[in-house]
Amino acid sequence: MRYAYVNGRFHRHSEAAIHIEDRGFQFADAVYEVWSVRNGQLLDADGHFQRLQRSLGELRIPSPRTRAALEQIIAELLRRNRVRNGLVYLQVSRGQARRDHAFPRTATTPTIVLTCKRLDFAAADARAEAGIAVITVPDQRWARCDIKTVNLLPNVLAKQAAQEAGATEAWLVDADGHVTEGSSTNAWIVTKAGKLVTRPADNHILHGITRARIFQCSQLLDLEIEERPFTPAEACDAREAFLTSATSFVTPVVSIDHHTIANGRPGSLATALRQAYLDQS
Amino acid sequence: MRYAYVNGRFHRHSEAAIHIEDRGFQFADAVYEVWSVRNGQLLDADGHFQRLQRSLGELRIPSPRTRAALEQIIAELLRRNRVRNGLVYLQVSRGQARRDHAFPRTATTPTIVLTCKRLDFAAADARAEAGIAVITVPDQRWARCDIKTVNLLPNVLAKQAAQEAGATEAWLVDADGHVTEGSSTNAWIVTKAGKLVTRPADNHILHGITRARIFQCSQLLDLEIEERPFTPAEACDAREAFLTSATSFVTPVVSIDHHTIANGRPGSLATALRQAYLDQS
Repeated sequence: MRYAYVNGRFHRHSEAAIHIEDRGFQFADAVYEVWSVRNGQLLDADGHFQRLQRSLGELRIPSPRTRAALEQIIAELLRRNRVRNGLVYLQVSRGQARRDHAFPRTATTPTIVLTCKRLDFAAADARAEAGIAVITVPDQRWARCDIKTVNLLPNVLAKQAAQEAGATEAWLVDADGHVTEGSSTNAWIVTKAGKLVTRPADNHILHGITRARIFQCSQLLDLEIEERPFTPAEACDAREAFLTSATSFVTPVVSIDHHTIANGRPGSLATALRQAYLDQS
Repeated sequence: MRYAYVNGRFHRHSEAAIHIEDRGFQFADAVYEVWSVRNGQLLDADGHFQRLQRSLGELRIPSPRTRAALEQIIAELLRRNRVRNGLVYLQVSRGQARRDHAFPRTATTPTIVLTCKRLDFAAADARAEAGIAVITVPDQRWARCDIKTVNLLPNVLAKQAAQEAGATEAWLVDADGHVTEGSSTNAWIVTKAGKLVTRPADNHILHGITRARIFQCSQLLDLEIEERPFTPAEACDAREAFLTSATSFVTPVVSIDHHTIANGRPGSLATALRQAYLDQS
């Protein structure tokens, strides 16, 4: 039996529901977080809890639970679902209200949903050992991608385009011709000189928790990071390319738009960063 | 008792629910339509049904019901809720699936939700007679606003900003300094020479059904329309300004960013267009 937590109670996952006039459903007026779980532990718990608070604050959605309460709920959710390796998904919407674009005039109770599932990290390891293909597509998203909201339809369309092109991820290219990030991952390259390059964490990309951890790991490995935009052309000509996310950690990219990166094998620095991340987690 | 239609059945509205892993809730992967209902009749039924098909087609969501079936459901919904003047809201999502950005690999059944409610059209008439205030805010939306999706969080934030500024609507201004449209309405001005101006129906605005009807009404009134972008400055200096939507029809705008338009009273052409629209509906 699979369980989900919704608004104060554990429900059978198959019966877990929200009201049709939930603002998360009608307006994408909701935020979310995803934690990887390894050996029963949340990875980067602090970073994800802090980002959740920031996302809620940016949308002025009241925090529905203390961190301590959330941690208790997550522990019980993992126990009930017998998940020791996988992910936890948390979504908080502004709640249920008579449909009207503006925030409800009388305070609503935020809707809180938590689920978890097992993940096959061995499959992720295998993907990292083989390296993945990405394509580039225009970045069609809104101007506040720094907030982790469910306003994700452009991400859905980009990821679908990638899969239809036989790729694993789509890198999004802004009006200036620079890569912002992937549809659900942050984007990185390694220059011929061995510097890591990734876009600054402005309003146009998610401020990845794993991205931030890579800054720490790069210090351990004595690697230099340049925070600046890069183009698909620079990426195609790079020594390495890779992406980061909470559930895939560090994954080498071996082709971009069917153009092979370097020798077509996962780069040594990306591989070392993946190992350093896992060692430190 | 209020009723809603969800996935083939009428439910008490208070108990009408969708699954927590509905893609409408997790990804804003859903489209919607709104019809005004006057004296028991759907206004501009054809236009809204056609736009629904286009929205579904753009997202490759299968059409969940024939138009004839939807019309039967809507008639029953209005009857059960005893609504003769109000609106019908329809939302269709890609359905429920294990969370993954890309479209589900095995076909899902789209989720279909229909609700209706009474509207006080006398209040809308009063607003039109007084005229409304708008403010301008940066357009932060995605690049495909021509598809009527629930990817509406930027619209929510814009409408909220308007209400906090004491205005009724927010006009969205793009990076070029032009008004795209309102957060839930199309935007129009009337030049000193008496020409109607509204932005062309490109990918950056909703192709309003009421907007299209105003093109017809303008012919009846022998008015010329220029489809081109305009700036907030031109709007402030215009002879008239107004907005259009399915539930507000035509509503004169009497101030923009606290700047009074003309003499601060609803313009004669906007008022005539509202009357012509209602006469023809």
